[in-house]
Amino acid sequence: MTAYDRLATRFARIATIGEASSVLGWDAATMMPPGGGAARGDQLAVLAGISHSLLVAPVVGDDLAAAEGAAEASGEPDAWSAANLRLMRHSYTRATAMPPDLVEAQARANSACEKVWREARRQSDFALVRPHLEEVVRLAREAAAALAPAVGLDPYDALMDGFQRGMRVADIIPVFDEYETFLRQALPQAEERQARRPAPLRPSGPFPVAVQEVLCRRLAERMGLDFNHARLDRSAHPFSGGTQTDVRITSRYDEADFAPAVLAVVHETGHALYERGLPASHARQPVGEAAGMAAHESQSLIVEMQACRSDAFLTWLGPQLHAAFDGDPAPYRPENLGRLWRRVERGFIRVDADEMTYPAHVILRFRLEQALIAGTLSVSDLPDAWNEGFHALLDMVPPDDARGCLQDIHWYDGAFGYFPSYTLGAMAAAQLMAAARRGEPGVDAALGEGDLSLLLGWLRAHVHGKGSLLEFNPLLQEATGKPLDPSYFERHLTARYLH
Amino acid sequence: MTAYDRLATRFARIATIGEASSVLGWDAATMMPPGGGAARGDQLAVLAGISHSLLVAPVVGDDLAAAEGAAEASGEPDAWSAANLRLMRHSYTRATAMPPDLVEAQARANSACEKVWREARRQSDFALVRPHLEEVVRLAREAAAALAPAVGLDPYDALMDGFQRGMRVADIIPVFDEYETFLRQALPQAEERQARRPAPLRPSGPFPVAVQEVLCRRLAERMGLDFNHARLDRSAHPFSGGTQTDVRITSRYDEADFAPAVLAVVHETGHALYERGLPASHARQPVGEAAGMAAHESQSLIVEMQACRSDAFLTWLGPQLHAAFDGDPAPYRPENLGRLWRRVERGFIRVDADEMTYPAHVILRFRLEQALIAGTLSVSDLPDAWNEGFHALLDMVPPDDARGCLQDIHWYDGAFGYFPSYTLGAMAAAQLMAAARRGEPGVDAALGEGDLSLLLGWLRAHVHGKGSLLEFNPLLQEATGKPLDPSYFERHLTARYLH
Repeated sequence: MTAYDRLATRFARIATIGEASSVLGWDAATMMPPGGGAARGDQLAVLAGISHSLLVAPVVGDDLAAAEGAAEASGEPDAWSAANLRLMRHSYTRATAMPPDLVEAQARANSACEKVWREARRQSDFALVRPHLEEVVRLAREAAAALAPAVGLDPYDALMDGFQRGMRVADIIPVFDEYETFLRQALPQAEERQARRPAPLRPSGPFPVAVQEVLCRRLAERMGLDFNHARLDRSAHPFSGGTQTDVRITSRYDEADFAPAVLAVVHETGHALYERGLPASHARQPVGEAAGMAAHESQSLIVEMQACRSDAFLTWLGPQLHAAFDGDPAPYRPENLGRLWRRVERGFIRVDADEMTYPAHVILRFRLEQALIAGTLSVSDLPDAWNEGFHALLDMVPPDDARGCLQDIHWYDGAFGYFPSYTLGAMAAAQLMAAARRGEPGVDAALGEGDLSLLLGWLRAHVHGKGSLLEFNPLLQEATGKPLDPSYFERHLTARYLH
Repeated sequence: MTAYDRLATRFARIATIGEASSVLGWDAATMMPPGGGAARGDQLAVLAGISHSLLVAPVVGDDLAAAEGAAEASGEPDAWSAANLRLMRHSYTRATAMPPDLVEAQARANSACEKVWREARRQSDFALVRPHLEEVVRLAREAAAALAPAVGLDPYDALMDGFQRGMRVADIIPVFDEYETFLRQALPQAEERQARRPAPLRPSGPFPVAVQEVLCRRLAERMGLDFNHARLDRSAHPFSGGTQTDVRITSRYDEADFAPAVLAVVHETGHALYERGLPASHARQPVGEAAGMAAHESQSLIVEMQACRSDAFLTWLGPQLHAAFDGDPAPYRPENLGRLWRRVERGFIRVDADEMTYPAHVILRFRLEQALIAGTLSVSDLPDAWNEGFHALLDMVPPDDARGCLQDIHWYDGAFGYFPSYTLGAMAAAQLMAAARRGEPGVDAALGEGDLSLLLGWLRAHVHGKGSLLEFNPLLQEATGKPLDPSYFERHLTARYLH
């Protein structure tokens, strides 16, 4: 066995343990009775500990050095193996850079803070969680400082690198700045245009949950999800989990409105199709994984925002919905669905935001979390900084911290550097959609028949099937001819909201 | 940290991995889409491999020796720690006695044989699976030979010891021989008495599956299962799985007959209540586990056969069933339910057998598997030996091997020494029920109200809460005043079927 083969065996083992954890995580959110929670936490912690030990074992360092030496000596290794080896080194470097005590302290502090945050958000009382968040930020800064020299990046970049490898603050700032400029012009125009048009009609329910569930399943199938390798269940918050050959998406259902369930399912189906399309020949290897969180979000958003909320698709979807729920057909007409599901509306809550204002929520968080990690913003100043920043972007001031800096779990759970992925994904989705339309001119006509197969075929060839062979920008470069370029997203919004 | 504490930490880790595997196993049988099967097999194999490595690590042997030395030096350790240490040694001895190559060869051969067996049973073609079973038996004999000297037992006893620690062929032979004598007299009498009585009325369906499921859940709750720590789902074969704080029982439903589902649920609830009642203060330690397969079966059967099929309980259950399904009340009268669910009927299939003839099926298998392991019966002679043995016990000859030696998965999956547990459990259930009635004279009156709490309280004190502190016979001795004594089971059958 070569050093590379030994590494591949070890990383496959780590990935297999990860699959077990993923199914257990899905179970915890969908099936587990409440009394199983404590034991489940232990089970996941033990599996995480075993994976970590497998990854940081000294023999891994020796084998990496030997495999890198062998690759150099042999001249031209194939691109997949070379990328795989780089990704193994990357994982090993990140894992060994973190002192075990710090990892443990973070796990403890994040978990404690997240619990208090739930109550603080409920009461809209930032002071309640402030000391916990201070500790979480302190440890995140320590982690960033430990990772930075190991990966050769600035501290905040080193954190972001854990979610979307290859993207740096320097790549993102110009993109976000350009978008901010665009938004200042486009948002008032979109609002004005919207105000001139008739208000959308709301389909009147109730919409039986069982009917919604059957419809959602049929939709996911229609979009290409094979239920021999997938499940659709209910959970408090929709998510996509499971494993590559057994993807599990969830939704939640509201008798009074089917839209949240339907839109969640098409979104999660986008994630699930990405997992299903990853290169099977590199399964359980780092290079066979999804290319990062921004790449993942691009795949849910290309399905949800680009494909399923398009005029073409709504033309097909409207009659399907009406057939399922019956009643007055007017609200199900494609134009009305468009007005209903493509509304621009400034609001305080990120997860409720429309696609045009959503990036403003992300830009705010991106700026604030950089400052928190740099130490130029203290936790006690966060609520004021949030409200000022929000006002500067969207010209409104949150009435309380529950609708301000307390709304998202991320920071309170120790995740810094994740937020940009949402908007990078939205922008990449628009750019990929434009390229797919160039590459497959029949994409929109097919969408009009409720058929995503042309789009999916293109995505499999240019995104899914590439796994982690390329980083985010090189992947876009190869698939679309350019690294991330926000003008595609702006053109998409202009076409949808301004014309 | 003492050597004992290090061992306790390690065994807790092993148990926690076991919990993860158990939930994944449950998922595979209830939730997993078919396409997830191959990856799930890998996940379970990796977890089993990790557990095994943790158990056989050389440091375990050192710590066991040190902890045993410390216990001896300190004089009187508490009984729980002493038992726990003995059980750790027992696991370690069994695991290290098996050569890794043999473990792997068995896993491969059992899996291959089991697959072919499904087809062989379908076609009733023993020749098809014979070479596979020969290999399985050959490896089982090797395993028995490897284990025997390590645990100081005869080869077949060493296999049985893996399922029900502490029970030997020498303990079982007199019990089974006595039962055979009883059966020769009792069975014809029971058949004759039954023939004189009116045939039972069958409730007429259909019985909607959703109604059955709600009823089953309510029944399990009524019997003491707390759904904050439990689930009830569907699977091809009913089972009880999950973990101590998250037990998961399953059933299957037939629109045409509610009895299989109801009886499966009460049976699996018995297993689940045992798991829930194990001593929480010794959770994840060997001494905190169930006392073996026969002990486990005694707990499902005391609930199903002793409690729920009793006259008293049927008096309560009948009106519940009628309220759920409506229709003609006559079939739901307790006397009729008794005639319906307590019928003696010779048949070829073990899993369909009534409680009086069931032991005959087990006795046959017990004798044949001893001979297979001893090498005095060859696999090619198995069908004839089966048919002769069956005829000697129940005076019938199976018309084909599908209804003979091909009916059970056990041997074809490499499990030798398991079968006796079923009947040891049935007998122990009768003995425990008699003791519970002595200890709690209100047990039957409570059953008449559908209330198992007195019985459950007694079982918790005398069986569940003891974990693995005692072996099977000492447990019965302490709970009932005697080691296993088949006369309680015989008296139970006499009262139910002959009076």
